[in-house]
Amino acid sequence: MKSFIEYGKVTNFPLQNIPFGVCEINGERRICTALGSYVIDLKMLEELGYFDEIMNKNGKLFSYGVLNHFLSLGRVISRTARKILQELFDEKNPLLRDNAEHREKCIHHMNNVKMLMPILIGDYTDFYSSREHATNVGEMFRGKENALMPNWLHLPIAYHGRSSSIIMSGKEVRRPKGQTRPDPDKPPVFGPCRQLDFELEMGFFVGTGNPLGESISVDEAEEHIFGMVIVNDWSARDIQSWEYQPLGPFLAKNFATSISPWIVTLDALEPFRTEGPKFEKELLPYLHTKGNPTFDIKLEVGIKSEKMTEPAIVCRSNYKNLYYNMRQHLAHHTVNGCNTRPGDLMASGTISGSTKDSRGSMLELTWRGTEPLTLPTGEERKFIEDGDTVIMSAYCENKEYRIGFGEVKTKIIP
Amino acid sequence: MKSFIEYGKVTNFPLQNIPFGVCEINGERRICTALGSYVIDLKMLEELGYFDEIMNKNGKLFSYGVLNHFLSLGRVISRTARKILQELFDEKNPLLRDNAEHREKCIHHMNNVKMLMPILIGDYTDFYSSREHATNVGEMFRGKENALMPNWLHLPIAYHGRSSSIIMSGKEVRRPKGQTRPDPDKPPVFGPCRQLDFELEMGFFVGTGNPLGESISVDEAEEHIFGMVIVNDWSARDIQSWEYQPLGPFLAKNFATSISPWIVTLDALEPFRTEGPKFEKELLPYLHTKGNPTFDIKLEVGIKSEKMTEPAIVCRSNYKNLYYNMRQHLAHHTVNGCNTRPGDLMASGTISGSTKDSRGSMLELTWRGTEPLTLPTGEERKFIEDGDTVIMSAYCENKEYRIGFGEVKTKIIP
Repeated sequence: MKSFIEYGKVTNFPLQNIPFGVCEINGERRICTALGSYVIDLKMLEELGYFDEIMNKNGKLFSYGVLNHFLSLGRVISRTARKILQELFDEKNPLLRDNAEHREKCIHHMNNVKMLMPILIGDYTDFYSSREHATNVGEMFRGKENALMPNWLHLPIAYHGRSSSIIMSGKEVRRPKGQTRPDPDKPPVFGPCRQLDFELEMGFFVGTGNPLGESISVDEAEEHIFGMVIVNDWSARDIQSWEYQPLGPFLAKNFATSISPWIVTLDALEPFRTEGPKFEKELLPYLHTKGNPTFDIKLEVGIKSEKMTEPAIVCRSNYKNLYYNMRQHLAHHTVNGCNTRPGDLMASGTISGSTKDSRGSMLELTWRGTEPLTLPTGEERKFIEDGDTVIMSAYCENKEYRIGFGEVKTKIIP
Repeated sequence: MKSFIEYGKVTNFPLQNIPFGVCEINGERRICTALGSYVIDLKMLEELGYFDEIMNKNGKLFSYGVLNHFLSLGRVISRTARKILQELFDEKNPLLRDNAEHREKCIHHMNNVKMLMPILIGDYTDFYSSREHATNVGEMFRGKENALMPNWLHLPIAYHGRSSSIIMSGKEVRRPKGQTRPDPDKPPVFGPCRQLDFELEMGFFVGTGNPLGESISVDEAEEHIFGMVIVNDWSARDIQSWEYQPLGPFLAKNFATSISPWIVTLDALEPFRTEGPKFEKELLPYLHTKGNPTFDIKLEVGIKSEKMTEPAIVCRSNYKNLYYNMRQHLAHHTVNGCNTRPGDLMASGTISGSTKDSRGSMLELTWRGTEPLTLPTGEERKFIEDGDTVIMSAYCENKEYRIGFGEVKTKIIP
């Protein structure tokens, strides 16, 4: 499968990917896809009639400012739209290839457009599904004996996050202020967070949801999942350790959550399926998944201080490290009848692995600041400093091509 | 102040109230207010020109299906709109009083309309601001020594809830299923919740919000608050006690949260201001509030089993029992730069008082089922059973009139 749009072998966005996003073109929000270094305006393609075969039954797919409506149509439609695009941009198909006027109207170089929030996110849920991460954090916050709570091996723990502060890659984050208690023998103090941290996560967007009072089973779950993005769940560790009991993280997390702009569909990830971990405890039947329920997605985190010209990679992890998979996430979330809506975001929780360099947060990488990282410039980092840029990237790869997510890149300002 | 629309002295909705809601009239969503037993169609009034003086600058106020746009305009506009309505419906004002055609177009009896969700709720936050409730629950879940966490007297604890499952009074709630561990020596089990509970709360809707990275101070807070509703934060106690550590309640709460249909403005509550509690610990300056920061709002909870014809009152509490007030809620929520949007809902947490009959949940009223309540029919209740209807009501009262919230009424189905 090859496109008449040229791209090298290592692009994130070959014809096999076809991710969905929203960008600004001529001051207007446009639903788009990516091919190599180009952005394709799907509203324009729709207006030019290229989606007529699915539009007849479903109305417009792409003439909106966000993807929510397209998500609500379900995976049969998104699969078909992706297939139409793969055929349309195939090097052997003259239809668009030989129509210079149409090509000019819908193809833009990535450098000339700005990516925007692709979804109006209703609710945002964050899971806690890496056993290594839960164990590391538990050990630091509650001691080795209480590291993994008794419930952890029986269900995917999660909490509700804040959807208003989910932002696009590229948007700067202001260091939050808050209440902390650095000295447990003195009253709490107020000031800028001193333990600002990233969390390396992946998230999925719900496509078709479920009505209140009904559930989605593990077997049905993937038909309700549209696609995935990289998530940086910004965390203020000093605020968190003081506030989080007994109801969980609140101000420590809700000041910002950054996501990558391109939503990669599960269909594009299909060739990268892999088995999940062995479950140590027998799970209840509603959490039993068959086959290969997870994906081999390589993850990286880089830090670039203001003195640096290139980021230094501080973490290499993999999505398959997670104990619980997406099917379990969605089935557990709805097993009580909780409704979900197209565009709800469910993140995985920090994806740490078993090796030291696969830990997905500064908290774990520096063991709460006791083992600082040294950057190539000689600068030390216990947590993230003002002026630092954190870059997370993710991709799947086989011998022929790469399915990339691009990156989520965020600079911290004072 | 008296209206030409007649109502008795004990109506929830005298001319002094003017709450805002959304109802269905002729199959259409209509923003409305309530007067006595009548609903006033504000879109119709707007079309008839009665709001022209504020519309010139602000565009349409009420020609939408939800109140979010009206909230976003801020309290100066909502105050003015309320005043226009109070003048228009005053018994001495002939303008509408003597225009039978207009009256017929905009005034409907409450029995003939259906109330709908008035707001598109972005994010929902639930505080935990009753000291008595936090102490009671803490004692039952963690023992007397760890009842009130060390942070509780220093900041208003809160967690993010789920906005998708916020429902209107009148909508039935299906008993949730989930994972629980009734016997700590055996593996967890799956099945219908056996400890279904209500939580008596009040919530406020954010009017004008704040941008990401900025904060709202305690002194500015009330200008950002549009009004209040009654909230029943449904809780599955057996699911909660098993899942809630370390990240807080999740499936135990997100299956349903019921709210009352009429939003009562802070302007209507103004005559019922009262001082808050004394703070045991000196609070950080960002939480210092001046004057009378809270309101004297009487609260009641009734239970009606299928055998009963009238509900039995099981709890009488008061909003002023809360330790932390709304100004502190909004200031704390945004102190880290978390943005809020018009229509965000922030609930108080269960409002328990110091007496046994003022406890705002079955968990506390029956002390986790160890002291069951006996209903007038002789039926015993440890928690809420299938077929039970829970009714919460709230009002302020002085010698002249009552400012009522109406009620939130929910039946539990299997």
